[in-house]
Amino acid sequence: MDAATRRREMISLLLIEVVIIILFGYYVRYDPAAEAPCPDKNKKGEDGRPVENPSEYPPLHQVMPMFQDINVMIFIGFGFLMTFLRKYAFSAISFTLLISAITIQWAILCHGFYQLIAGERVIRVGISQLVEADVAAAAVLISMGAVLGKTTVFQLIFMALVETALYVTNLTIGIDHLQAADVGGSIFVHAFGAYFGIAVALALGPPMSTEDDESTYVTDIFAMIGTVFLWMFWPSFNAVLSDGDEQYRIVINTYLALTASCIVCFCASSIVSPRNKFTMVHIQNATLAGGVAIGAASNMMTLPWGALAIGGLGGFLSVISYQYLQPMLLQNYDLHDTCGVHNLHGLPGVFGGCASALLASLASVDDYSSSLYLIFPARAPFEDTFELNEAIGDLPQITAGKDRTALNQAGIQLLATVITVAIASLGGTITGLLMRSISTKLHDDEEMFQDETFWGLPPPALASASQSSQSLVRCSN
Amino acid sequence: MDAATRRREMISLLLIEVVIIILFGYYVRYDPAAEAPCPDKNKKGEDGRPVENPSEYPPLHQVMPMFQDINVMIFIGFGFLMTFLRKYAFSAISFTLLISAITIQWAILCHGFYQLIAGERVIRVGISQLVEADVAAAAVLISMGAVLGKTTVFQLIFMALVETALYVTNLTIGIDHLQAADVGGSIFVHAFGAYFGIAVALALGPPMSTEDDESTYVTDIFAMIGTVFLWMFWPSFNAVLSDGDEQYRIVINTYLALTASCIVCFCASSIVSPRNKFTMVHIQNATLAGGVAIGAASNMMTLPWGALAIGGLGGFLSVISYQYLQPMLLQNYDLHDTCGVHNLHGLPGVFGGCASALLASLASVDDYSSSLYLIFPARAPFEDTFELNEAIGDLPQITAGKDRTALNQAGIQLLATVITVAIASLGGTITGLLMRSISTKLHDDEEMFQDETFWGLPPPALASASQSSQSLVRCSN
Amino acid sequence: MDAATRRREMISLLLIEVVIIILFGYYVRYDPAAEAPCPDKNKKGEDGRPVENPSEYPPLHQVMPMFQDINVMIFIGFGFLMTFLRKYAFSAISFTLLISAITIQWAILCHGFYQLIAGERVIRVGISQLVEADVAAAAVLISMGAVLGKTTVFQLIFMALVETALYVTNLTIGIDHLQAADVGGSIFVHAFGAYFGIAVALALGPPMSTEDDESTYVTDIFAMIGTVFLWMFWPSFNAVLSDGDEQYRIVINTYLALTASCIVCFCASSIVSPRNKFTMVHIQNATLAGGVAIGAASNMMTLPWGALAIGGLGGFLSVISYQYLQPMLLQNYDLHDTCGVHNLHGLPGVFGGCASALLASLASVDDYSSSLYLIFPARAPFEDTFELNEAIGDLPQITAGKDRTALNQAGIQLLATVITVAIASLGGTITGLLMRSISTKLHDDEEMFQDETFWGLPPPALASASQSSQSLVRCSN
Repeated sequence: MDAATRRREMISLLLIEVVIIILFGYYVRYDPAAEAPCPDKNKKGEDGRPVENPSEYPPLHQVMPMFQDINVMIFIGFGFLMTFLRKYAFSAISFTLLISAITIQWAILCHGFYQLIAGERVIRVGISQLVEADVAAAAVLISMGAVLGKTTVFQLIFMALVETALYVTNLTIGIDHLQAADVGGSIFVHAFGAYFGIAVALALGPPMSTEDDESTYVTDIFAMIGTVFLWMFWPSFNAVLSDGDEQYRIVINTYLALTASCIVCFCASSIVSPRNKFTMVHIQNATLAGGVAIGAASNMMTLPWGALAIGGLGGFLSVISYQYLQPMLLQNYDLHDTCGVHNLHGLPGVFGGCASALLASLASVDDYSSSLYLIFPARAPFEDTFELNEAIGDLPQITAGKDRTALNQAGIQLLATVITVAIASLGGTITGLLMRSISTKLHDDEEMFQDETFWGLPPPALASASQSSQSLVRCSN
Repeated sequence: MDAATRRREMISLLLIEVVIIILFGYYVRYDPAAEAPCPDKNKKGEDGRPVENPSEYPPLHQVMPMFQDINVMIFIGFGFLMTFLRKYAFSAISFTLLISAITIQWAILCHGFYQLIAGERVIRVGISQLVEADVAAAAVLISMGAVLGKTTVFQLIFMALVETALYVTNLTIGIDHLQAADVGGSIFVHAFGAYFGIAVALALGPPMSTEDDESTYVTDIFAMIGTVFLWMFWPSFNAVLSDGDEQYRIVINTYLALTASCIVCFCASSIVSPRNKFTMVHIQNATLAGGVAIGAASNMMTLPWGALAIGGLGGFLSVISYQYLQPMLLQNYDLHDTCGVHNLHGLPGVFGGCASALLASLASVDDYSSSLYLIFPARAPFEDTFELNEAIGDLPQITAGKDRTALNQAGIQLLATVITVAIASLGGTITGLLMRSISTKLHDDEEMFQDETFWGLPPPALASASQSSQSLVRCSN
Repeated sequence: MDAATRRREMISLLLIEVVIIILFGYYVRYDPAAEAPCPDKNKKGEDGRPVENPSEYPPLHQVMPMFQDINVMIFIGFGFLMTFLRKYAFSAISFTLLISAITIQWAILCHGFYQLIAGERVIRVGISQLVEADVAAAAVLISMGAVLGKTTVFQLIFMALVETALYVTNLTIGIDHLQAADVGGSIFVHAFGAYFGIAVALALGPPMSTEDDESTYVTDIFAMIGTVFLWMFWPSFNAVLSDGDEQYRIVINTYLALTASCIVCFCASSIVSPRNKFTMVHIQNATLAGGVAIGAASNMMTLPWGALAIGGLGGFLSVISYQYLQPMLLQNYDLHDTCGVHNLHGLPGVFGGCASALLASLASVDDYSSSLYLIFPARAPFEDTFELNEAIGDLPQITAGKDRTALNQAGIQLLATVITVAIASLGGTITGLLMRSISTKLHDDEEMFQDETFWGLPPPALASASQSSQSLVRCSN
């Protein structure tokens, strides 16, 4: 990859950014909650002051802490988790920052285009849109994990733009049309991102040399910064856009699931690893699988023990997949998945979809009372029925649904999982093929997994250099 | 330690986790705030909607940010603070994660068992229980600091299970029976954890070789990540389960105490260290001693200058203890305390208990008005007295107390400190002796302070390897 | 620098701390919100309970999360951003902690002295005062970046004390007297801190040798921890003391500006760097310039595209300044700016002041409705006018202003920027000259940019030592 290519690609990125700013200029406006208050249009609050927040969303100070937790997961969590490669830490953290930044801008537009189609005149951006854009960035970063070290920057940016559009489309199909429930994104974020990523990786083909596809002691410690922040803030990721008892349940379920997947992951790692020692890549990743697995079911009545069981199984599945499935896929299908996203996000995501189907099949008004129709909107009674009115009497946010049965909802959960995997795989394959054509392919053994390819690097540490030259000098005497 | 032992111990852990999940299945249910709302049982809110949160605790979004701060302290703070050892960073961070995860699950059960004894039918888990479990993990991690690098994983797990049960028992004695005040855990968390840990360390005996009980430049930087996060989020640790003016005062007092202990720690470190340079282990640890020292008194009327003074003295005490007491204890009593938890948590914790006694002896209705009876519940007047009714008129949360005098409350603060140190020391000694019998002892010079003992490690950095082999080649020519 | 000097300086610091504690004892008391509730003096809330928080500020749980975000920016963000030097990481993080701690205490007093002058009897410390003190620490840390590695600890402390007093004075002139708007501190924090710092750097003179004024691969990764936390939490920095729609707008504007500056920074870095590769110092710093640039205008109606444009231009300006201006200033004016704070905080801060002037010139009641008079208090109508009463009817917090025009307000924004740069430059020069006289000058090539100067360091890693000695042994055979 030569300087002219790098220059051309970065000028292209600059033009893309200009286009995005122009699109923002045409279409994007503040959420009403961020507009100046127009007192005459608002009802007055109890204290006689005009109500300042006419938005449908909760006030900022209620959402902001969880929003910042998610930012930490995206930028520190994913960024540092990917620093484990011995010579690719600059790129891992920095490209996480770059790819997320452009995905966030583009996701606001993509989400908005569907609102424009639905008849809105402008795209409103408020805290909820920023959260949704952050979550889209999570999906893209998962895919990036599968191809880490094997692409140019511009290929990543291209992938991010295409994937975001497809991600929003799939989300619209799954949430708006199928009315599947996936509050924590097991299906629409984790499974989507993972299968999109491995499809891209398959289309790009495996690297010839994987000499630098290895970690070092120090880069593995850096990666643990990512792991621990992801682990801790996962409850915020699943809970951010909920409220009330649902949000409360999500936090408890997710937290418990993570503790169980952590413990089971250590056990499984020791049992399957050589000489029964722990393997760092398991601990860095599979400890998190409980968060992926509980995602879609985290607002359901799993009960505390159910959350532990789902989390523990997720951790177990992930370790087994790292140890046995990943080498098998590489050998038999040439599938090279740098960070093993299939093991952490793919399989546990599908497992999470299945767990949500099981929980959905068991869900009844006995356990959920009227909130059943908030968790599963399609299960709400038809318009103008006595049952609907009664439910609205309990919880005014409820809207008319399709009177869907528990088993039908369970089927929809499975269907959404299948459709997501299909769209992601197909989309990823096409995207991967396009990525091969839009940019120079990196030379395998010199450019892949190398910061050197993209960065002006600092000289190697003086101390060790002088040490070794010293020893040479003494030797030659 | 051979592979079969590692395997057997991890299978045991898996069985323990299964037992915990079964116990959760029998006993643990959601907090009412996380259950589906049952509209007919709840009063309606002002807007006619049913009140969604019938819990006695504040709404989730109010507690969640401080809860996450505490998680950062536990998992990043303690985890990275312990990475300073040159060859033990994988274990330090990862075992922090593992031990905390199992402690959190087990602490929920231990706290709950006391509720079952008190007549509850099930154990309720809500955000407050998760916070309490997190705090229990802090106590266990403090003890882990004393034996870091000298035990097997399973010994740590055994220690965590026993210590958590004892910790909850001591807390019940101190808070429920003695009605001592310790909002920030100086006594019940820091002193308990430290004396338990050094008793275990004494029972295990000192390591024969301490060649790798040293830091490196890079691992000391990693440790500073832990220090800084602990330092910053300490106000949240002390304040999380309070509210109103009390919470406000805790945040101010703790923050000020930390700034003072930081400044005094730098001064003291320079004054006592060789050639008057700073010593990294002082900065990593003693800067935090102000948070430990102010803990029990942080909701009292120390005034801002008092908080500074307590924090500064805590920092001074901690540096002196690191520099002079720790080597003396090692030489005279064979007490090897890897992280020096006695200097950071032990002595400053006891000092914090004494400070709370002093403040308690000065506390009067003049300064606290009726909130005195919330800070020190036993000082509230007896049931059915005019004074009690008047106080309840001011603050309805007040309940009948024992009409305890200020001096009696001060005595109780000291008594709680003494009892805690006694229970911790005795419990730690017995636990340490049991730990010697349940697992292989690590070989001193080959296995202690070595990630190698538990981990499949990445190969040493290629660059330096090739460098040195290169120099050998050139030499042999 | 000898041991006696270090000892004498640290004893001086201890005395300074004692004086500060005494000043706190005389003057500083809790904010009413942290005092015990005095029921008879307070109005009762709707539920009949006395209102517990009589402060003018929002309740603690509303401010606390953003306060903690800012703490992370100060202590982790600035601290780790400055660890990039190859042999100065201990000092970078630790001195950040020390300097911030003393600045926070001193800033509370400095802010308070102006209140005492204004007639208050005591200095009240609450969460707002802690936030203001944190922000003062940011200004000092920016200045510290310009002289990093070139001063003694005591010189830094002296600089912090003088700068904080000047910072508070300049803030009082700008906010209270000129009534300039600078919610995010572009002018009063970033420009002030940067020009103060480079004036100090100029007065101290450049280092003779800059051999160790370089990064390494690992220290650059540590620095990225700082970058990413600063990047993520910048919206909290700008928004912390606002509320309502204004706070909402600040978060959206700042977040968008940062994404744009990140993207433009990558493009610009590649375009201007040798062989069109990215330069780490650009990514570490210029990605943040959007936050600096949008600061003063972040509560204004920039619209989302305007925030992107301001952020992008800030990032562009910063990269250009790093690449071309900084070497030129060093060569022509002997201005050595270790962290390049002029490029990140100086120029983008001035640019932010200009952007705020542009936005202020466009601000009208049409866009802002009555909230115009909260954003620009001097634009509010005169006392006892019909217009003022009408505005107060909309938003009761509005107070009488000076009926200033939009263009006048724009002029004031520019004037405040000019005055700030002037005070900072003059103050910094004098402070720098004084710093030369109060402490030993560090020897250039042995003591500057060296942790060794202040720290007892751990021995070099055993592994590599044994390796090299091994190779020597084999050679000698």
